[in-house]
Amino acid sequence: MKITKIKEVFRNPQEYLDKEITIGGWIRSLRDSKTFGFIVINDGSYFEPMQVVYHDTMENFEQISKQNVGAALMVTGTLVATPQAKQPFEIQAREVVVEGASAPDYPLQKKRHSFEYLRTISHLRPRTNTFQAVFRVRSLIAFAIHKFFQEQGFVYVHTPIITGSDAEGAGEMFQVTTLDMKNVPQTEDGSPDYSQDFFGKETSLTVSGQLNGETFAQAFGDIYTFGPTFRAENSNTTRHAAEFWMIEPEIAFADLEDDMDLAEAMLKYIIKYVLEEAPEEMKFFNSFVDKGLASRLELVLNSDFERITYTKAIELLEKVNDKFEFKVTWGSDLQTEHERYLTEQLYKKPVFVTDYPKEIKAFYMKQNADGKTVAAMDCLVPGIGEIIGGSQREDDMDKLRARMEECNLDEGEYDFYLDLRKYGSTKHAGFGLGFERCVMYLTGMGNIRDVVPFPRTAGTCDL
Amino acid sequence: MKITKIKEVFRNPQEYLDKEITIGGWIRSLRDSKTFGFIVINDGSYFEPMQVVYHDTMENFEQISKQNVGAALMVTGTLVATPQAKQPFEIQAREVVVEGASAPDYPLQKKRHSFEYLRTISHLRPRTNTFQAVFRVRSLIAFAIHKFFQEQGFVYVHTPIITGSDAEGAGEMFQVTTLDMKNVPQTEDGSPDYSQDFFGKETSLTVSGQLNGETFAQAFGDIYTFGPTFRAENSNTTRHAAEFWMIEPEIAFADLEDDMDLAEAMLKYIIKYVLEEAPEEMKFFNSFVDKGLASRLELVLNSDFERITYTKAIELLEKVNDKFEFKVTWGSDLQTEHERYLTEQLYKKPVFVTDYPKEIKAFYMKQNADGKTVAAMDCLVPGIGEIIGGSQREDDMDKLRARMEECNLDEGEYDFYLDLRKYGSTKHAGFGLGFERCVMYLTGMGNIRDVVPFPRTAGTCDL
Repeated sequence: MKITKIKEVFRNPQEYLDKEITIGGWIRSLRDSKTFGFIVINDGSYFEPMQVVYHDTMENFEQISKQNVGAALMVTGTLVATPQAKQPFEIQAREVVVEGASAPDYPLQKKRHSFEYLRTISHLRPRTNTFQAVFRVRSLIAFAIHKFFQEQGFVYVHTPIITGSDAEGAGEMFQVTTLDMKNVPQTEDGSPDYSQDFFGKETSLTVSGQLNGETFAQAFGDIYTFGPTFRAENSNTTRHAAEFWMIEPEIAFADLEDDMDLAEAMLKYIIKYVLEEAPEEMKFFNSFVDKGLASRLELVLNSDFERITYTKAIELLEKVNDKFEFKVTWGSDLQTEHERYLTEQLYKKPVFVTDYPKEIKAFYMKQNADGKTVAAMDCLVPGIGEIIGGSQREDDMDKLRARMEECNLDEGEYDFYLDLRKYGSTKHAGFGLGFERCVMYLTGMGNIRDVVPFPRTAGTCDL
Repeated sequence: MKITKIKEVFRNPQEYLDKEITIGGWIRSLRDSKTFGFIVINDGSYFEPMQVVYHDTMENFEQISKQNVGAALMVTGTLVATPQAKQPFEIQAREVVVEGASAPDYPLQKKRHSFEYLRTISHLRPRTNTFQAVFRVRSLIAFAIHKFFQEQGFVYVHTPIITGSDAEGAGEMFQVTTLDMKNVPQTEDGSPDYSQDFFGKETSLTVSGQLNGETFAQAFGDIYTFGPTFRAENSNTTRHAAEFWMIEPEIAFADLEDDMDLAEAMLKYIIKYVLEEAPEEMKFFNSFVDKGLASRLELVLNSDFERITYTKAIELLEKVNDKFEFKVTWGSDLQTEHERYLTEQLYKKPVFVTDYPKEIKAFYMKQNADGKTVAAMDCLVPGIGEIIGGSQREDDMDKLRARMEECNLDEGEYDFYLDLRKYGSTKHAGFGLGFERCVMYLTGMGNIRDVVPFPRTAGTCDL
């Protein structure tokens, strides 16, 4: 049977007015009198619901009238304009089929529930207004990212989830194993015998696809990853999850400036796409979740992002060091309070901070001529601070090896990475965007648990 | 610096002819004489390379001439038409900058290498013609899938990778843990003490996002997942990997017919997209990898897929049972030989087989009125057999519970799933498409290890 989506009707009402259509959705509210009733139905395609009018001329008038919030209906009827009413049109039902009733203890009655409570029913919360908006926008952001890169010919690479290396030592890792935990086989020296494990060695969940991504950038020029990454960190904050998705583009024949150009263009593209495709949801977030959201996104869209060096940033911050809990000095990492001061107070727009001291950045970042800094960049945005971190990569074999030695990395683990410098090395750069942080930024939602369908955090792995 | 992609030049030569451009890429071949030389360069954006001519008027003429295959160059020069030559144009170089030399032991010299050998250098094989084509097409297929669903308003859902349940018992699972493997903490009865594990319970890598996906379909109507899934199965075949990506759409207010319509439309959309976007790669596959590919895909594109019941299929197969290694009888599962007979010999086009015996299908599939079969469907395609498996889902609470009991499933684990039948149940359906199998199908590549960037199979987890 041809089902018409409510979104389709709202976007193209002229096509449907005075015609018969069938919609399928769930009751948001129902009120009935003796001879007729009103049902407000949401079908999940659109932020606004559809009003349906039904009459006692229907055989199942009583069955319909006793339905609870959450019941599933299929409604066939004529779409008519309602110029006097709040909503622009309604369906005059000819037939209402009750697909599935909703038990009296349905947890989502009309009253508002706290986000905390809704987290305990992650299988039902997507039926609420807020989570309808969050997860539709999450989906749109994901697609906008793919579209942005694909339009420019980037190759999407699925870097591996299970990994035998600890990448950049970027964080605590989850172990992946098929060994019998009740009776872990041991080698002679008493350590676990990973030769008996599924892959014949110790394996973990990836913390970053970057190094794998670089191998593809040296073949395709421009590539991006978009996949899940993991941190087994026992941090109970509103910003950290154990499982999250990350986007990591990597571009060859490109330097740090190109990298920043790409990051800036990407952020603007995503924002523009979501504002165009989900204006109702974005208006809702601005009204009910975060009142500064619309103007903040507008600002990002219309700014040329500022670009300053870390050294310059420290100079500026030292002048107002008394404002900060953590005082800055050259060599220290920037805290969120410093980042937000730069982007919110000083520049009032997004800011790239570049050329950080090499000691506080990863081994693979390109060393600058000054011998002290690396060609790194962090993108700071009002309202959140750092949203993107990237760098030009060290493409000089000797410098890279020297730095790896300083960092006590085992060269044998990085043979493949060194090969990229041995066979046709190019200047290249890349960055990482935490997908959930991006969704939080665009929706104004304050807790990462509320932008992930089924969040995984320390102690929590429901459904 | 503005870099022009070789693909851009080939797609819009009129825009670039007789103008100066800069390209960045890697040497495929180089031959020089005393006063000039030719370089064939690939930049990863396009299947065809670019020819570059350089002259001894350049200061670094000798440096260029001694470069090895695989070296990275940036070339600036004028694009000129070459009507007498094999290639349509070439770059008359004004400047050639050697970005990075390629060591003499570069493994990818001109001779052809076996796929087996190339698997041992997964960081370099994307630089070969075949893997350039495979991974560009893989990227395009991924995008085509997103585009197909997004254009119809489907919501993309990231179902969790780490899971506390064993889903449908669909296969052997990898355990995910942060417990100390050298000294696994134990409970009093000697079993591992998972209360001390990261999530406070035993967790594994997902085998399917379907059940989570259903919760979202009951809120948004139409959703799809696209993410990695895992099987810890010790099978060493050309079709199985331990880590692979899967697409699982789920549609509400929809039955098995709608499900088949969706699957058929999706397959045709993907094929059409890839043929349009990567004609050079597809021609290459048809010429050098699988000579029947083009006609097979053309056939799929232009067929109305056949739809027959399992019972009918068994009748047809029993007539020719002597052809098969495994004889069919009603109740047995179809083997690849039977599937291929149906789709290749009998119908000569894609075939949906529907309504399988419930005993050989999963508990959640909708029971038919006959009491014997379920509303399942497998999509069989010439050249491969089953590519998609799906079903209408059981939406009747009582029938679902009865079937779960028959299958010895613990109801407590499935509370959330039963809730979907308690609160506004709808007829709904979905299917699963193994992404790698789809890439194999569209490229003709015969081994799953050759369509995954960094394959994970029993005993193998490189890079």
